Amino acid sequence: MGFWKTWFSSSESVATNKTTAFEDHTRGDKGNSNAVSDSIVFSTERDIDLYELEELCDAVGWSRRPLRKVKKAIEHSFLVASMWQVRGNKRRLIGFARATSDHAFNATIWDVVVHPDFQSQGLGKALMKYVLKKLRSEEISNVTLFADPHVVDFYRTMGFIPDPEGIKGMFWYPQ
Amino acid sequence: MGFWKTWFSSSESVATNKTTAFEDHTRGDKGNSNAVSDSIVFSTERDIDLYELEELCDAVGWSRRPLRKVKKAIEHSFLVASMWQVRGNKRRLIGFARATSDHAFNATIWDVVVHPDFQSQGLGKALMKYVLKKLRSEEISNVTLFADPHVVDFYRTMGFIPDPEGIKGMFWYPQ
Repeated sequence: MGFWKTWFSSSESVATNKTTAFEDHTRGDKGNSNAVSDSIVFSTERDIDLYELEELCDAVGWSRRPLRKVKKAIEHSFLVASMWQVRGNKRRLIGFARATSDHAFNATIWDVVVHPDFQSQGLGKALMKYVLKKLRSEEISNVTLFADPHVVDFYRTMGFIPDPEGIKGMFWYPQ
Repeated sequence: MGFWKTWFSSSESVATNKTTAFEDHTRGDKGNSNAVSDSIVFSTERDIDLYELEELCDAVGWSRRPLRKVKKAIEHSFLVASMWQVRGNKRRLIGFARATSDHAFNATIWDVVVHPDFQSQGLGKALMKYVLKKLRSEEISNVTLFADPHVVDFYRTMGFIPDPEGIKGMFWYPQ
């Protein structure tokens, strides 16, 4: 499939053997050379199945959004990062994040999601590290996001500071 | 000049006669039909003289940034809004703002500046109204910004809410 061809060209596999957090040997016998082992792969490919992405967002309870708009948002994001569980020749979308940017100074990260089955295993952190690495490689110096209250501490551990020097994140609502 | 030609096609003049805030008759005799009257014009034209923009940013004390990067940021912003004082056939850049966006859901406003000579006259508010009108016309529902402490109240009067529902603006710094 065209998807796989282009996808692998812009994807990175992490931790193909050593890092326990990113490997799952529970399904395979380590002594068996035919054992199927899972790996976690990151990609910046934009050609994501929108229904698969919607399913992922459903799983964390997000409100549904028109796929037409999601498609447009992906097209016009500066960075689109996805995280996949790969088992044999099957892959499953288990994480997603994207960023808008002026391609020069600022980037803002949106829509960070990790499937509940894969949370609390360090994968959210791995996804964010991947995003930050990609943004830094583009010389973006100011990386920002708007964090829901329950994930503020998570982002803090990643090096994000809330309200630095009193700078306030603000949202506009029509008066 | 090409600039003027393209510029007027995408610009909007506000308050050509009635609104005091946007007209300055002090230089002209109202009884004299040759009187020169100032008007304030808004534009979304991107072809802005980078040196003129730098001068405007200098006037408010911002740190200088490489013009190469400023150019790139303007090119990749979703919206570039400028405010001009027009007197006869002369124009002067007196305000600027831009926004990054995914063209679908979110926009983030950056680099809002009004020349000190033109502050406290409602022009910052007029510029922001222009920006918000443009973003709304593109069906962007979530308009955000990061406000320095001394302008939080200004943005509050425009309908911006800090930390709505506990959502925190966060900035990343490498650990």
